[in-house]
Amino acid sequence: MLTARNYARLLPSDPSTRATALHLYGLVATHPILSPHGHVDPSLFVEDAPFTDPVALFIRDDHYVTRLLHADGMTLDSIGLQRPWQDVDTRAVWRSFCKRWHLFAGTASGYWLGSTLADVFGITRPLTENNADELYDEIDSALRRPEMRPRALLESFRIELLATTDDPLDSLDPHVQLSNDSSLSTQVRPSFRPDSYIDPAHPAWRENVSRLLSTTANGGYDGYLEALRQQRRRFVNAGATSADFGVVSADTLEMSRADATAVFDRARNGSASDADRAQFLAHMLFESARMSVEDGLVMTIHAGVLRNHHTPTFQKYGADRGHDIPVPTSFVKGLRPLLNEFGSEPGFQLILFTVDETTYSREIAPLAGFYPSVFIGAPWWFLDAPESAQRFRAATVETAGFYRGSGFVDDTRALMSIPARHDMARRVDAGFLARMVADERLSLEQAEVIMGDLVDAIPRRAFKL
Amino acid sequence: MLTARNYARLLPSDPSTRATALHLYGLVATHPILSPHGHVDPSLFVEDAPFTDPVALFIRDDHYVTRLLHADGMTLDSIGLQRPWQDVDTRAVWRSFCKRWHLFAGTASGYWLGSTLADVFGITRPLTENNADELYDEIDSALRRPEMRPRALLESFRIELLATTDDPLDSLDPHVQLSNDSSLSTQVRPSFRPDSYIDPAHPAWRENVSRLLSTTANGGYDGYLEALRQQRRRFVNAGATSADFGVVSADTLEMSRADATAVFDRARNGSASDADRAQFLAHMLFESARMSVEDGLVMTIHAGVLRNHHTPTFQKYGADRGHDIPVPTSFVKGLRPLLNEFGSEPGFQLILFTVDETTYSREIAPLAGFYPSVFIGAPWWFLDAPESAQRFRAATVETAGFYRGSGFVDDTRALMSIPARHDMARRVDAGFLARMVADERLSLEQAEVIMGDLVDAIPRRAFKL
Amino acid sequence: MLTARNYARLLPSDPSTRATALHLYGLVATHPILSPHGHVDPSLFVEDAPFTDPVALFIRDDHYVTRLLHADGMTLDSIGLQRPWQDVDTRAVWRSFCKRWHLFAGTASGYWLGSTLADVFGITRPLTENNADELYDEIDSALRRPEMRPRALLESFRIELLATTDDPLDSLDPHVQLSNDSSLSTQVRPSFRPDSYIDPAHPAWRENVSRLLSTTANGGYDGYLEALRQQRRRFVNAGATSADFGVVSADTLEMSRADATAVFDRARNGSASDADRAQFLAHMLFESARMSVEDGLVMTIHAGVLRNHHTPTFQKYGADRGHDIPVPTSFVKGLRPLLNEFGSEPGFQLILFTVDETTYSREIAPLAGFYPSVFIGAPWWFLDAPESAQRFRAATVETAGFYRGSGFVDDTRALMSIPARHDMARRVDAGFLARMVADERLSLEQAEVIMGDLVDAIPRRAFKL
Repeated sequence: MLTARNYARLLPSDPSTRATALHLYGLVATHPILSPHGHVDPSLFVEDAPFTDPVALFIRDDHYVTRLLHADGMTLDSIGLQRPWQDVDTRAVWRSFCKRWHLFAGTASGYWLGSTLADVFGITRPLTENNADELYDEIDSALRRPEMRPRALLESFRIELLATTDDPLDSLDPHVQLSNDSSLSTQVRPSFRPDSYIDPAHPAWRENVSRLLSTTANGGYDGYLEALRQQRRRFVNAGATSADFGVVSADTLEMSRADATAVFDRARNGSASDADRAQFLAHMLFESARMSVEDGLVMTIHAGVLRNHHTPTFQKYGADRGHDIPVPTSFVKGLRPLLNEFGSEPGFQLILFTVDETTYSREIAPLAGFYPSVFIGAPWWFLDAPESAQRFRAATVETAGFYRGSGFVDDTRALMSIPARHDMARRVDAGFLARMVADERLSLEQAEVIMGDLVDAIPRRAFKL
Repeated sequence: MLTARNYARLLPSDPSTRATALHLYGLVATHPILSPHGHVDPSLFVEDAPFTDPVALFIRDDHYVTRLLHADGMTLDSIGLQRPWQDVDTRAVWRSFCKRWHLFAGTASGYWLGSTLADVFGITRPLTENNADELYDEIDSALRRPEMRPRALLESFRIELLATTDDPLDSLDPHVQLSNDSSLSTQVRPSFRPDSYIDPAHPAWRENVSRLLSTTANGGYDGYLEALRQQRRRFVNAGATSADFGVVSADTLEMSRADATAVFDRARNGSASDADRAQFLAHMLFESARMSVEDGLVMTIHAGVLRNHHTPTFQKYGADRGHDIPVPTSFVKGLRPLLNEFGSEPGFQLILFTVDETTYSREIAPLAGFYPSVFIGAPWWFLDAPESAQRFRAATVETAGFYRGSGFVDDTRALMSIPARHDMARRVDAGFLARMVADERLSLEQAEVIMGDLVDAIPRRAFKL
Repeated sequence: MLTARNYARLLPSDPSTRATALHLYGLVATHPILSPHGHVDPSLFVEDAPFTDPVALFIRDDHYVTRLLHADGMTLDSIGLQRPWQDVDTRAVWRSFCKRWHLFAGTASGYWLGSTLADVFGITRPLTENNADELYDEIDSALRRPEMRPRALLESFRIELLATTDDPLDSLDPHVQLSNDSSLSTQVRPSFRPDSYIDPAHPAWRENVSRLLSTTANGGYDGYLEALRQQRRRFVNAGATSADFGVVSADTLEMSRADATAVFDRARNGSASDADRAQFLAHMLFESARMSVEDGLVMTIHAGVLRNHHTPTFQKYGADRGHDIPVPTSFVKGLRPLLNEFGSEPGFQLILFTVDETTYSREIAPLAGFYPSVFIGAPWWFLDAPESAQRFRAATVETAGFYRGSGFVDDTRALMSIPARHDMARRVDAGFLARMVADERLSLEQAEVIMGDLVDAIPRRAFKL
């Protein structure tokens, strides 16, 4: 949001470039938000209950926050994870957090939190151990106000569209309820996320496949493909526009039906080798692209993260605890089978997200600059921050321009942070465009059009909104 | 070129740094162009025929342009590739292109095109669907003027030297004719490019080797080496100063004569394995370095591009259609055999080009900062653009300084774009040097000397001009 | 040092950002230096002899300098390496160096040398062939002044603590002498560097292990571990706070005692395979972490450098001759066994240094942002320079903040350059923080606190000083 307080935030410091950037930013500062990929729980809006307390709101579920507290020596236990929430001394956790606020200086998490506190709660003073209790009370009482309820926030944040991330067998009831509710102006759409159904190395794969097969008359590999197709159709009917894939490797492979059936059967009876499992996943990415050609769901690949690096933490606290770590990533050879088959299929769209930023200039921009199907995913996860967002633009635009991108994606669980995230992207892009105008690489008129398209036409096209 | 219109283009926005940059740029803005590596067809200057039309000039042969049109959904057919040119509705293609001009905003191609239109044709207004026909006519009629003929452009562009890229069995007739023509002040020199003669995995290898062997009395592997040596000497006599190698991997290997002969024979009779072929190529890079030590041709390695990624496009349209995609690249272990043998040979020079920019600070600058033979190739291909050229300097200069570089290389087929490309490099370097002066890392006097050397002494030394 | 001459060096050029940077830099410009990792010879301070001449001081032992001279065609012989020093015509070498001073423009080495000449010797004019003799005399006579002796420099440079790098069987006599010498205010501490004792592929491993085993009653693998533990304790008692590991790969592995014993025995009798040796080294990194948990020594890993790339140079001149070249590096999978076992052990600290800067945002910041044990090593070797130091901050801070770093590490043999190196880091950080203030990502108050912590609390914590 554009306020006197922060009007120049993230914009270039050179006065004349800053003036251009401010002008460009002003064109989109209040533009409605399209959030085509994220992890907000849709039942939040069905229930529309108040957020319970500052720790539940800002700390407990945000593994970007808990990880830095953990790195500073706080155990995840002491943050209250996995205990009945009523047993947690949330004030004590909040105090520990405020005491460590300096650890977040300069980080993306610090930026989202600081922006949210300022823009939503009007809190602009720094968090300290001394004012922790006072801040706790201030936030806590604000949370009881009706305008702080989830649905009210959707309105005040101007969120036009919010996509969630959902299990293939999810009922999608909340989505149906919300889409039937004429009092809600935000579209809340599901996304199909089948990782644990297509990767035999996933601990839940065998059980999930059994559950999936129980939805169709046919069994075996053929029934499995058919069931996936059916669930995808159900998602399409519920308004989904994308199917999302989180994988370590972007390898793809076309197996024959006979081979795929054999590996599928081995994986189900527990006799598959590691190579079997990896090949089956690669094959299922290939088959998922085929399904996207058929049903039109945009395929997104989020590659290159080794999940749950610290086994003891995973065993004690489960997934999403802040120790998913990127590894060297390459898309070019791995995606070749898929792109050779579907890369120029009309209507097929594949968005590539990476946490290895070397792939931006080396691979993703070159691929998106040739294949009509390939789009460049916005800076993701560790790269979703002001400096890296700037590097992202600089690394991709010279090869692929502005129009092969996905538009900004917030990818967050934290509803409260959505405006700050989109605002960051708009500011960084305004600054980037302003520098190009100052460099005489773009005219101001060109920059104005691009600025507008970045928050609207571009995400609509990439995600088929 | 320095005009009122674009005098500050690409230069730093801070006023005092900009003033320094302008001063430095002014020292070299009109300096004659040395173009020691590129792909302009030398017969262009023998024939000196006018360019036929705007599409043939700017679109058809520029795979940087056609790739972005293709990415936006235009088929290569609709651009007219591979049809008899008289059957192509060039006006319609031009209109489709102008309609998509915004896709090129911020790209290197957009920059070359915009600069050429402005500097050569005086066209500074944006391309749109509405003014497409008018622009077509304007360019088309300009192309009929005598000063737009290829030889006149060499003069007006102040191109002192232009190296082409040639097949080892090329007649080199155009080069001989041009060097005997006293009315041409530009030196047009050939370069030896033996990829399809040394890589058994190349589709044309067997046929090319047969043709090569027919030039000598001896057969087999010995005759093959002898024939390569002879053709290199022919190139040297015709003014060549470099031998260029385009490879996915920079692996090198010294095989014994017996082993090399055996693999050569297997490759010729079609029984070589993939490993055989890869080893033979690695061995031939090694042998080519040995030949460079003997005959003095500068060796250039352009590594890390997987060619023809989309097989259907390759099968239908052939090579160089915009889907060559970079892959992760490393030089250090692969070049070790070659550098252990020839790395400190007096007179041996090896220029390394990369499209994986991670190798700049990690590998290429460290190698060039020790080996007297190794030079840092200018930003190549996708990296030949303002932002990436700046990153290139920042990534190499702190380890290897300014004097271990190749000087700027335009590497283009597009004669018209040569001045804009060199001008870009001069501006980026002026800006980079000006920042170093502002940072008090260089004195202005040092920066002035470096600026001059970058466009003259440095490329002359690296390419032995 | 802050002087009228260079007060704005390396600081942002935008006037208002520069003012902020100057303010921040001023807060720490004269702060005492903590140098927790480096390669200065401790006997320098025991003997306290004058430096002999400019070449011995600035060129002979600095492989950053000799490498660029070598790259320009000077043989290492002509620089005088490995000849009796009295036989070397140091004036002639100095002249050759001054003639090539332009090669160092923009490099880190040029920066250290230029800064040292200016700040320590008051020489600000450029080095040229013409003034070489005059400069030689000027430096040479200055070196005879008492304030130029090593101990005097420790005082005038305000070096509070200086860690050296020492062989596990080093007597540590100099350290003991210095710590008993109440006239020296600098703490000079040893560091445990066991590379050639734990890597069976190291040429000296077998001999070193024999010498190591001779220090204990027990033989074999058990005695070997015990002896390492004993030597580490000896270092701890002599004031060491870290154990340093230089490896190509950061792979770690826990072997059973039986397996480790078998490989150890094979390696000692010369029958180990390459895979054996690599596994044993990986296992010894694992065991070294265990020892760090026990004795508290901070573990530092310097990974990803292929040493002695040019075999002929290594054979003739030995190690550390400027041809150690970085290779692609990854920590995530390799360190997993070690971090799964010790990553959250209280008191265990592991600092990761890299020369592959792609690992900063992809791996090191994410690891340090979760594991309480992992700290981000300061820019190392080729990356220890103004531009790359800035990229380092930009690549790590958004994920891990400022407090997961090691603080600046000069890692140098060259005592004279230590102030210039720390000063560079302080300036770059001041500029970085000032930009964050200008961007409204930090308040000035936050930046002031961070600035102070970067030169004091942060290195003290990371290195347990």
